Amino acid sequence: MTAAPARLFDFIGGSEGTWRVDRIGAVTGDSLPAAARLQVVEAGGATEPTGSAWQLRGITSNERYVERSEKQQLLARQPALGRPEATRAALIPIRKNAAWWAMTQDERRTAFEVQSRHIAIGLDYLPAVARRLHHCRDLDAPQPFDFLTWFEYAPADAEAFEALVAALRASPEWAFVDREVDLRLSRGA
Amino acid sequence: MTAAPARLFDFIGGSEGTWRVDRIGAVTGDSLPAAARLQVVEAGGATEPTGSAWQLRGITSNERYVERSEKQQLLARQPALGRPEATRAALIPIRKNAAWWAMTQDERRTAFEVQSRHIAIGLDYLPAVARRLHHCRDLDAPQPFDFLTWFEYAPADAEAFEALVAALRASPEWAFVDREVDLRLSRGA
Repeated sequence: MTAAPARLFDFIGGSEGTWRVDRIGAVTGDSLPAAARLQVVEAGGATEPTGSAWQLRGITSNERYVERSEKQQLLARQPALGRPEATRAALIPIRKNAAWWAMTQDERRTAFEVQSRHIAIGLDYLPAVARRLHHCRDLDAPQPFDFLTWFEYAPADAEAFEALVAALRASPEWAFVDREVDLRLSRGA
Repeated sequence: MTAAPARLFDFIGGSEGTWRVDRIGAVTGDSLPAAARLQVVEAGGATEPTGSAWQLRGITSNERYVERSEKQQLLARQPALGRPEATRAALIPIRKNAAWWAMTQDERRTAFEVQSRHIAIGLDYLPAVARRLHHCRDLDAPQPFDFLTWFEYAPADAEAFEALVAALRASPEWAFVDREVDLRLSRGA
């Protein structure tokens, strides 16, 4: 019997970790406390993190909006995490407002893709940018954000990554974002 | 500031609780251990349950499939939990298989409503049957089921409730259910 793939992750800001924090900025609402390093760990491990300033938890899950034709394109083009050349990363926690969560599935799909082209915009930046989405909303304890998205890219793709986040932030979907923090990180090659 | 509505619930089978367990039956896969009573409590309370044989946890969340026109009909017809005459209840925990979770949103919606008329079938039994759906899949710890659905109805609607669960179990969606337990409960009027 093989172990199930890890789904629950903690992002721990503090004095330790593989990733150096280059900057933490609030895009909308409150920022997070300063931290020098970030650890990304599977949650529920035996060792308690030391030197932590804050901790964010999220879980990977089934996709909520992607349709089959989009999924085929994503599978064909999306890179894995952990590429040696991807020495830059971003952690972008966001929270959506009550109006978003009160919408029905068809309304959220319309805002997400028909109006905002969220999936289509992301596809434009594959295979440069690797991505893993974590959901926070249905964990046991209330969380400060609804989603934690983790991105990895090479320094040569840093400008492309800025264009990606700018395009998403300019989309109608982002009118529903009421808190967003942007952490940029790097590690040795 | 008003408190957020409770979303995380524990269903505790054992020797205590408002609800008397009339029967526990496995529909698909393993059953649950016998228990005389069931408590339904908001999770994270100060008191530890006593006399418990087992505990299932779930969280209410945004709807995954309902569209606006369906939502309008549900809102117009669905009753609240806790009606004095609703002295019968059912707790139906289900787990769906890997094939279900590997489908994209459009594929799951097709199986759920286009092929199986899950929402339409439910509407046929409103306002007789009150219902609350709890999700288990994105909690911190792995759970034995993906969903816990809680139903309340009056004794006079018991036959209608049997017809509802029979219709759902006969639908194509149920081919994806790989574990299902059915608990029936009652309380004094």
